[in-house]
Amino acid sequence: SGQRWSPILSSELQRSILKQIFDSTQSRTLLGRRKVVTTAAVSEMPLKLHYFDPPGRAETSRLCFTIGKVPYEEVIYEFKTWPEHKAKMPFGQVPVLELEDGKMLAQGGAIERYAAKLAGLYPEDPLKAALADQAAFHMADISELFVPTFRLAPEERVKARQEILAADKFKEKLQQLSKLLETSGEYVAGDKLSYGDVVVFVGLSNIICGFMDGVPRDLLEDYPVLKAYRNRIASIPAIKEFYEKRGEGFRAAFKPDAA
Amino acid sequence: SGQRWSPILSSELQRSILKQIFDSTQSRTLLGRRKVVTTAAVSEMPLKLHYFDPPGRAETSRLCFTIGKVPYEEVIYEFKTWPEHKAKMPFGQVPVLELEDGKMLAQGGAIERYAAKLAGLYPEDPLKAALADQAAFHMADISELFVPTFRLAPEERVKARQEILAADKFKEKLQQLSKLLETSGEYVAGDKLSYGDVVVFVGLSNIICGFMDGVPRDLLEDYPVLKAYRNRIASIPAIKEFYEKRGEGFRAAFKPDAA
Repeated sequence: SGQRWSPILSSELQRSILKQIFDSTQSRTLLGRRKVVTTAAVSEMPLKLHYFDPPGRAETSRLCFTIGKVPYEEVIYEFKTWPEHKAKMPFGQVPVLELEDGKMLAQGGAIERYAAKLAGLYPEDPLKAALADQAAFHMADISELFVPTFRLAPEERVKARQEILAADKFKEKLQQLSKLLETSGEYVAGDKLSYGDVVVFVGLSNIICGFMDGVPRDLLEDYPVLKAYRNRIASIPAIKEFYEKRGEGFRAAFKPDAA
Repeated sequence: SGQRWSPILSSELQRSILKQIFDSTQSRTLLGRRKVVTTAAVSEMPLKLHYFDPPGRAETSRLCFTIGKVPYEEVIYEFKTWPEHKAKMPFGQVPVLELEDGKMLAQGGAIERYAAKLAGLYPEDPLKAALADQAAFHMADISELFVPTFRLAPEERVKARQEILAADKFKEKLQQLSKLLETSGEYVAGDKLSYGDVVVFVGLSNIICGFMDGVPRDLLEDYPVLKAYRNRIASIPAIKEFYEKRGEGFRAAFKPDAA
């Protein structure tokens, strides 16, 4: 009963079925004005992704669901009223994925990989999966460098972020990512788009999207391999289309040629 | 060619073959006095796990290989001479897993999941895998709280760690872990041991093993669910046997009833 898709359906068949029911089922719910949209073709309780509106730690899952045409809904919290909802979450955090049976799956890294598997984006070959995970964890290491800056007073954040950008550690990690992408070929794990590419695309776009005051939007000018890769992944039709529909605010930086 | 095991072999058959060749093939290499042990039954270049001797970020992979009877070797660095070897690693860090073809797979989270898959410890069902990942990422969140303390001067570390232990954040996260384990049943992901259990066992043992001055070895007395779970996983025969052979120093705390 814990299994979303019967294992006797091939991934390809799953995706073909999902494709047929996808377009009519996407919906977003802004908490407080909740409106859940479902159709008869979808189970009574579709997957619900709980998070804030900015891309943040939920964007990889949003993109995986979208690329794989997996029906899902979003429950979007406002930062102001979030404390009222915190206690409902297993670890007091979002993202959380509410499953069809109402159970709450926590931890962004777990949700993302689950979304990627449902979407056919997580390699079945263990070594290719390891290459996707390697890229994802290295991207996470880069993003994590900025986490302590959110604990500072707003007026101290810009200076702290500029120090991070100027430090050898940050530059080295971006150069290591460049080298990884150069030696990987078109994608990080084998000859097609995978979870690893989605994570690196989201991670790089998140850094330059304006969410973090003090990080310049043209940062990738100094890293031509990263810039070209980000723009190439952004140009993949399903990703490009997602940001054509939802490209306001921070998400403008997720479009092709935004960096 | 990137695939370690032919997909036409079932996991069970793979493990049965591995079991036959396992006992004669485990070896440890202390860098500087390098001695690689192989047998004809194993490929010319077995998997090599590069790390330091303490459990740290490599212990989950060591245990997965051991439980699954996957032949591997260890290349162990000394902290003093580590800087000479840093540049060989993809991201300047260990753990790194050197593959049969000499390629270097980096990032502990990627290596662990690869090891778990080869060992048959990573659930094939996506939802069970998500439950294993959820527990692993929550355990990582707990461990990460202590990371900044390693950047402090040695004389400041004890105080900083005692502040972490006394803070609500740490206590809440351990209580959330207790609740997760209580509601999961015997194991975190379904009805058998998985990657998620190995991570939680290693994470809890690491915290109390004495590697971090200032963290008391009887910390889990305040968390009876965690204490009982840790002791139960430690009593699983393959794990118990590993620490009977290799239970000196920090690893004494990985034994059953050590906490």
